[in-house]
Amino acid sequence: MSNRKHNFCAGPCTLPVSVLEEMRDEFIDYHGAGLSLIEMSHRAEEYDAVHQEARRLALEVFRAPEDFDVLFIQGGAILQFAMVAMNLLPPGRRAGYVNTGTWAKGAIADARHYGEIYTAWDGAADGYTRTPEDSEIEVKDGTRYLHITSNETIGGIRFPKFPAVDVPLVADMSSELMARTIPWDRFDLVYGGVQKNLGPAGMAMVFIRKSVATPASESLARYLRYDVHLDKESLFNTPPMFTIAMVGKVLKWMKAKGGLDVIEREAAEKAAILYRRIDESGGFYACPVHPASRSHMNAVFRLPNEGLEARFLADARSADLLNLKGHRSVGGCRASIYNAMPRASVEALADFMQRFRAEHS
Amino acid sequence: MSNRKHNFCAGPCTLPVSVLEEMRDEFIDYHGAGLSLIEMSHRAEEYDAVHQEARRLALEVFRAPEDFDVLFIQGGAILQFAMVAMNLLPPGRRAGYVNTGTWAKGAIADARHYGEIYTAWDGAADGYTRTPEDSEIEVKDGTRYLHITSNETIGGIRFPKFPAVDVPLVADMSSELMARTIPWDRFDLVYGGVQKNLGPAGMAMVFIRKSVATPASESLARYLRYDVHLDKESLFNTPPMFTIAMVGKVLKWMKAKGGLDVIEREAAEKAAILYRRIDESGGFYACPVHPASRSHMNAVFRLPNEGLEARFLADARSADLLNLKGHRSVGGCRASIYNAMPRASVEALADFMQRFRAEHS
Repeated sequence: MSNRKHNFCAGPCTLPVSVLEEMRDEFIDYHGAGLSLIEMSHRAEEYDAVHQEARRLALEVFRAPEDFDVLFIQGGAILQFAMVAMNLLPPGRRAGYVNTGTWAKGAIADARHYGEIYTAWDGAADGYTRTPEDSEIEVKDGTRYLHITSNETIGGIRFPKFPAVDVPLVADMSSELMARTIPWDRFDLVYGGVQKNLGPAGMAMVFIRKSVATPASESLARYLRYDVHLDKESLFNTPPMFTIAMVGKVLKWMKAKGGLDVIEREAAEKAAILYRRIDESGGFYACPVHPASRSHMNAVFRLPNEGLEARFLADARSADLLNLKGHRSVGGCRASIYNAMPRASVEALADFMQRFRAEHS
Repeated sequence: MSNRKHNFCAGPCTLPVSVLEEMRDEFIDYHGAGLSLIEMSHRAEEYDAVHQEARRLALEVFRAPEDFDVLFIQGGAILQFAMVAMNLLPPGRRAGYVNTGTWAKGAIADARHYGEIYTAWDGAADGYTRTPEDSEIEVKDGTRYLHITSNETIGGIRFPKFPAVDVPLVADMSSELMARTIPWDRFDLVYGGVQKNLGPAGMAMVFIRKSVATPASESLARYLRYDVHLDKESLFNTPPMFTIAMVGKVLKWMKAKGGLDVIEREAAEKAAILYRRIDESGGFYACPVHPASRSHMNAVFRLPNEGLEARFLADARSADLLNLKGHRSVGGCRASIYNAMPRASVEALADFMQRFRAEHS
């Protein structure tokens, strides 16, 4: 499509055009069935094929080992903040939370109602501009899991390496879910909303080590139990069929591109284009994040003053470069460059940054 | 479209063709924005207009009074089974549940973890083939609310009138949500999955009396608190934007048809066509439900034997009459005729039933 704009939104976010076109073309009459996929029973043969393929591809593309399964659960990553503790944290144990910023704080705020939680590291002293070294993380006795936010969408920081600690990791990977390879042996659970790298809003994906799915308490509603979703292959109740169908198509697109290694390398390259433009701007653009912790998904930067930032955002918009405003809680600018963001769009932004600086510095 | 089949699925279910077409046409480039609605920020102006219109129309079409608001919450009606008790039932109070069948049992199974629950009436003695008279419902002292399942999708029964009791009602209306008018003054909360009368799967709508939204306990994760969703107008986290957009379009379609009174009258007429065909079949078709409790949404019926039922379903399918099989837990046949089911499709089914009986009785 000729009218397509460059969408740097932090989420929901840009999706592959080919996937959008495929969904549009089959939207009303699904492969000659005489009805839309979204009008079908979730027990229908046609939908079941879509559902099972999405599950299979999620495990395959993310290279999850055999002792893991994937769950599709509504409520976004936010509901997982609670479910992780409800299911994984029994009385008498505790869980460490690495506080790297806005989303880590959210995880702590919700988990604390369902078990003993402590802060294993806090980035407050550095203004949440970096992730910790392993040696800085305090893991207390009796810790069931260490929770990390692998990428902070608002702060624009990420863990360049996953912590090597003596307890299992649980990670909120929402903004870099399936954008990088992970050392599965260190993890019990990985979760994230799909509305950044994988599809439209409407569910979280939870990759869970099957042996830990039995909930810490029997006194838990069925929708909130991982074992229920696991046993029913995410068909315990009517699933968000449209979102799952879209995620399946995006996963197929990822696989055709060459899978996770290619995705991860492209992400590093796309991010490098922007950080280079920032670092070589003689201070016109400034990224507050420690270089080693810079996100490959969300590049945050400031301009010399708020007036120039406003001008930058307005001019960018006129150049069809959309949604570059930083989160309202921190201001500044942010370019979110998830899996489906074409390299050409990143280059268009880098060119624009060059021109804008030449005009205004 | 010429290929359109008659889809009697119990949910997800048939939607208005005009709504599907509208979504398809704007799917890739939303009103010239250069991106899809599902790629936009949920804080974007374009999406906000869609979101607020869906909220407004939901309250308007359902004729909810001013002291009610509507919430869009993921997790289906099943998560509401838990949330209702978590939020509305404080320690020291209890809640009565009318057990009318499969879905009422589900509500009880989940709510019992979060407060004192008792069964206020049980339809077991009648095989769950009817709803109770008011005089049969036992409301105990200290009851915070009485929970009813206004229509049982599997059993095919409904409350012809809503109970008049001395405590507030809470109703799971999933399979007849916004298919009938309700006496709002008796209710504190009405909820239901949207995937039957209102749109694709992916969320519940919760109509809540605003004054009861403060949760019974402060120790509750944010996603599970009605007051959080209320304060943020269902934008606390990224909402299921596609589902909301579709529901908004269906609500507009309902309004254009003449609103709830027309919808309710049409539902009664469509159901009457099928029940008449059953009752006048000389026993060839049999509906196990007490006449006064017959659902206007899900007409269940049996044939003389299972062999004939299998033949009926196969022949119906060949005649483009889809998804008439009863729920796997009860067998038999079921025609689900929700708001978007055209009268012409119901008549096509009635004609087919006539022909089939002539051939096989």
